[in-house]
Amino acid sequence: MTTNSASVGILGATGYTGAELLRLLARHGSARVTCMTSERFAGQTIDRVFPHLAGRDLPTLSKIGEEDLGKLDVVFGCLPHGTSQEVIGAMPKGPKIVDLSADFRLKDPINYERTYGKPHAAVERQEAAVYGLTELAREAVKKTDLVANPGCYPTTTQLPLRPLLEAGLIKHDSIIIDAKSGVTGAGRAPKEGSLHTEVSEGLHAYGVSTHRHTPEIEQGLSESAGEPIAVTFTPHLVPMNRGILSTTYVHLKGSVVAEDLQDALEKRYQGEPFVKVLPFRSLPATRHVRGTNRCLIAVHPGRLPDRAILLSVTDNLVKGASGQALQNMNVMLDFPEAEGLKEEPLFP
Amino acid sequence: MTTNSASVGILGATGYTGAELLRLLARHGSARVTCMTSERFAGQTIDRVFPHLAGRDLPTLSKIGEEDLGKLDVVFGCLPHGTSQEVIGAMPKGPKIVDLSADFRLKDPINYERTYGKPHAAVERQEAAVYGLTELAREAVKKTDLVANPGCYPTTTQLPLRPLLEAGLIKHDSIIIDAKSGVTGAGRAPKEGSLHTEVSEGLHAYGVSTHRHTPEIEQGLSESAGEPIAVTFTPHLVPMNRGILSTTYVHLKGSVVAEDLQDALEKRYQGEPFVKVLPFRSLPATRHVRGTNRCLIAVHPGRLPDRAILLSVTDNLVKGASGQALQNMNVMLDFPEAEGLKEEPLFP
Amino acid sequence: MTTNSASVGILGATGYTGAELLRLLARHGSARVTCMTSERFAGQTIDRVFPHLAGRDLPTLSKIGEEDLGKLDVVFGCLPHGTSQEVIGAMPKGPKIVDLSADFRLKDPINYERTYGKPHAAVERQEAAVYGLTELAREAVKKTDLVANPGCYPTTTQLPLRPLLEAGLIKHDSIIIDAKSGVTGAGRAPKEGSLHTEVSEGLHAYGVSTHRHTPEIEQGLSESAGEPIAVTFTPHLVPMNRGILSTTYVHLKGSVVAEDLQDALEKRYQGEPFVKVLPFRSLPATRHVRGTNRCLIAVHPGRLPDRAILLSVTDNLVKGASGQALQNMNVMLDFPEAEGLKEEPLFP
Amino acid sequence: MTTNSASVGILGATGYTGAELLRLLARHGSARVTCMTSERFAGQTIDRVFPHLAGRDLPTLSKIGEEDLGKLDVVFGCLPHGTSQEVIGAMPKGPKIVDLSADFRLKDPINYERTYGKPHAAVERQEAAVYGLTELAREAVKKTDLVANPGCYPTTTQLPLRPLLEAGLIKHDSIIIDAKSGVTGAGRAPKEGSLHTEVSEGLHAYGVSTHRHTPEIEQGLSESAGEPIAVTFTPHLVPMNRGILSTTYVHLKGSVVAEDLQDALEKRYQGEPFVKVLPFRSLPATRHVRGTNRCLIAVHPGRLPDRAILLSVTDNLVKGASGQALQNMNVMLDFPEAEGLKEEPLFP
Repeated sequence: MTTNSASVGILGATGYTGAELLRLLARHGSARVTCMTSERFAGQTIDRVFPHLAGRDLPTLSKIGEEDLGKLDVVFGCLPHGTSQEVIGAMPKGPKIVDLSADFRLKDPINYERTYGKPHAAVERQEAAVYGLTELAREAVKKTDLVANPGCYPTTTQLPLRPLLEAGLIKHDSIIIDAKSGVTGAGRAPKEGSLHTEVSEGLHAYGVSTHRHTPEIEQGLSESAGEPIAVTFTPHLVPMNRGILSTTYVHLKGSVVAEDLQDALEKRYQGEPFVKVLPFRSLPATRHVRGTNRCLIAVHPGRLPDRAILLSVTDNLVKGASGQALQNMNVMLDFPEAEGLKEEPLFP
Repeated sequence: MTTNSASVGILGATGYTGAELLRLLARHGSARVTCMTSERFAGQTIDRVFPHLAGRDLPTLSKIGEEDLGKLDVVFGCLPHGTSQEVIGAMPKGPKIVDLSADFRLKDPINYERTYGKPHAAVERQEAAVYGLTELAREAVKKTDLVANPGCYPTTTQLPLRPLLEAGLIKHDSIIIDAKSGVTGAGRAPKEGSLHTEVSEGLHAYGVSTHRHTPEIEQGLSESAGEPIAVTFTPHLVPMNRGILSTTYVHLKGSVVAEDLQDALEKRYQGEPFVKVLPFRSLPATRHVRGTNRCLIAVHPGRLPDRAILLSVTDNLVKGASGQALQNMNVMLDFPEAEGLKEEPLFP
Repeated sequence: MTTNSASVGILGATGYTGAELLRLLARHGSARVTCMTSERFAGQTIDRVFPHLAGRDLPTLSKIGEEDLGKLDVVFGCLPHGTSQEVIGAMPKGPKIVDLSADFRLKDPINYERTYGKPHAAVERQEAAVYGLTELAREAVKKTDLVANPGCYPTTTQLPLRPLLEAGLIKHDSIIIDAKSGVTGAGRAPKEGSLHTEVSEGLHAYGVSTHRHTPEIEQGLSESAGEPIAVTFTPHLVPMNRGILSTTYVHLKGSVVAEDLQDALEKRYQGEPFVKVLPFRSLPATRHVRGTNRCLIAVHPGRLPDRAILLSVTDNLVKGASGQALQNMNVMLDFPEAEGLKEEPLFP
Repeated sequence: MTTNSASVGILGATGYTGAELLRLLARHGSARVTCMTSERFAGQTIDRVFPHLAGRDLPTLSKIGEEDLGKLDVVFGCLPHGTSQEVIGAMPKGPKIVDLSADFRLKDPINYERTYGKPHAAVERQEAAVYGLTELAREAVKKTDLVANPGCYPTTTQLPLRPLLEAGLIKHDSIIIDAKSGVTGAGRAPKEGSLHTEVSEGLHAYGVSTHRHTPEIEQGLSESAGEPIAVTFTPHLVPMNRGILSTTYVHLKGSVVAEDLQDALEKRYQGEPFVKVLPFRSLPATRHVRGTNRCLIAVHPGRLPDRAILLSVTDNLVKGASGQALQNMNVMLDFPEAEGLKEEPLFP
């Protein structure tokens, strides 16, 4: 970084994570978007795609390849899974990269292939990538050129669970994560299942026992546990746009009580600007983090003596995607970590 | 029943369960509402409270005590918890009663007092009441004068679980129920927490480990298991009006596999008009039962070998309240069980 | 009609109007669906497309041409505009036809071509078609073989306006219709603009001064007025699934007062099963007709002396589409007009 | 202003406009909240009322009278109508006041009494108050001590209309405003009509020809027109939390065409940071201003030659309430006008 203001590129700027980056970067004092790509809308201005972004001083959309990405300070990859590894694999060295796709999250190429059904196309970069759950990987993020930005479900579930595994407070074989997400998690692709008519006034589970975020969650938990962990993970689609709530059921080890989990989490996240451990038995709501990079965590004792319940909420487009990506950029470029991320929740 | 058309009274007709009974009874060929009470709106017609009921041939609202309830064939109690036991305790013998409150659901007076914080005011009737989860209590319902109509969460969770406990397929000590409900479950009382502004575009858990439906669920499960069972039960409030989805996590006994659960449930509910076991690994949605008395159940294998996940959905105002109440009335009066309950789902 | 039960075909059964016909026909005592077509899902059962219809005794989906439509008693056309005229133009004589597309609504081929940008492909049938706003065209519907089922906006706006024009109570040159519709009006086609993320928590106008329902509305109003009428018509998209509310602003002629409009409408719709004129100054809500074939109308005086405001609400999928289509079928086949249309509103 | 940071008091901080001020002030570089009152929650911290505000450095809630308001630089009045005039009437001179209630908006005491049914309790202050539609009253706001902050509907409708009246482009006797608002406009008071169950999935008009914002709108339009104007104004309640869309129907004078309106509005609002005139025939959506102080305006030609349609959208809690209040504070205290109001829209 030799300039005062980092030049930022966004690959795939016309999805929701791209739009969200543009929203957040508008308030960033030291970064400036100088390149935005969209295969479908190249040549157009962003307000054709997102009228709410009209009036911003932003570059015209271009196709990947039309511009020299190497001259940028940072590149955010908001491309579809699969495409991302190809584009990033072919990128010149130089820019710091934060990839929001799933492509670089799984460290083990075999695990990747099993999960995504084909071999990875940029294995070297995959191996060098740092999994950017910022609060738990700050030092590594600082040193890397490629951050694999965590998924929305993995972010919301790992933040409460990993410190407890590291502290040896909970059993490894019985973690159950019941997660609920708003509709932005499905992206902007026009699909019947994402229509207002099909989503509103209703609720359903999906990807039961098979969702692709499961291996990503397990990778992180296993790292903290020091041994392979398998979890039960059930996502649900809730008729709202933003927000994830994870309700996580754990068995306590030996003489551990729920208050011990509270203490461990409070200690672990003390001073963190974005991860907040609420008072014991609190009831966090997704609407209370809307538009922010926050994760709220609460601990509840179980009705059965050796159990506890963890509640954690994020805005899936912010801490679960673009906000954490920006947080990672700030760490990589040695900017204040909260720069561009100071928004208060929009409620109601 | 000596008349052709049963005369029906609804105590507390101006809440949502009362309105729902009125909706369903409009299509019932052998029942006629002749008495509707409301302490707050007595003397008025129902369309003042519920404009959507205008034009119906319905009696004027009266106060309890103004009319002789003893002359009715059936009385539905839609009164608040606590009030219900007093009114029903003082009622003359004669009418069949279906009580939709929680007052007569817990068989054990000590359990009742522990859960609701005061002794029961009509213990005798409490002991004689039949817990009307119709599919599992049909014969008893047929013979009783007082049905305690199950709660919405207990209905949605017991229907998949109890046959599995009876068949000895799942472990007793590790049942976790993660339930999600629409807002009608909170009733029509004006509370900040039920405002559109506070509910829409958001999600939260409530009553974690402490919800009053827990003892009711445990009572039913324990009966089926043949020993006391404690469960983990976490309700959530979802921004929709109607619907409950229960995601239930179970451990399989010995060599049991998830397909065995599927078989047991299919066999148990074969021929049932309202409880449908979907094909293995289906994804039921609350919107697919909207306005109907149906419960859809699906079985999923766990990611871990000895686990399974049960999904069950109902419309909390119908099978979870007024529909099941009407179903119980039909059984009590020897009407066709589906009379008045043939609505197709309203989707979208 | 020589059989006891009319055999019904639905062309294009896998859109929302098709699904709604299937919902309503389930409760019809004298009609049976024997043919359902879908170019995209031919060979499959309907529950693959609409899980909420599982368990119904319905024929497998077929392609148009695979079955002899001539043997049916009634055919409902739920095909896209443009396609409908081709299919219906080629159909054998015999079955009564109710076409829900816009293809046969405009009587004047020149008007049709100007509005839809190409000549009509079945002009003869177009000329013979009866515009089936049932309450205003009952006798003609009774005699015809082809009903052009009115659009949702035209139904909701013509019902209050046409009797007033016929009675000579309002001026012809200053009718302003501000209409608001739920999202089902846009159909089931996956489009970005219909996604939950793009529709919920927001509101916008569309088709200002250019919406294709305008000529349809004007055709009906002109017929009632006895001279050509042009109207201002502005539709809006509201974040709800079902419902249309038309707020219509009229200038009163000479010494007419708003109460005169009330009288004229009450007289005109006296005894109608589906069109209800509410007490003067009522506030009808779309949620109060949800799922029903009803149209509620209210008259309000203006703040300025010679003005009045008309409010009218329908469920766009029922009275605005499939319900009125069924009503027309009942009239054509001399069934009781309300058969299959007795549902009470689903509220909340 | 002698200090670097203005000390701000919020009277009635526990409603939605109070919470919104707190949200916006968090990003204001030169203002600091030092006093917040709430009769109901005095003695508590704000996070008890609004959990999303937890962690902010804010004063404990107090009762009016417990603190010396005279020492504050600015006071925002977020009290109910009626109460506000009493409290503000009794306040010591000194602080600049921005009152968000309706109490000081109507200049004519007779008009006030007719509209609100009782005489004004602080007539002197009423007469001295400046109606703070900032873009149209900047100089007067700069000089006053008391700003009557405009209502949400009046803001959204006057911004497009008043420049056209001033320019003499539209007729005075036929303005029709069809307005649609989200639910936050009804405030946080628990009322049946504001429940999620009663608001979602539905739509209705209210206050037809009688809404209290009508005289406020007429006062502003009359001032611009130079003669008394009466308008038709119909508000509607839309199932969303934030946003107002006004669809305004106007008759053009003489040879005026819709493009002339476009020109006049573009010229009038050129350079304004918050009021944006979109390209001719644009379709502004409330969701595109969510969370911002913006008003988007679009002009459409009518289907009839001498008509035009104006569309205008705001976030009713920001430009329609707390945002404009803050904008007025900035003008009064000579801060940069956009300070604290730079948020980008939160979409989706």
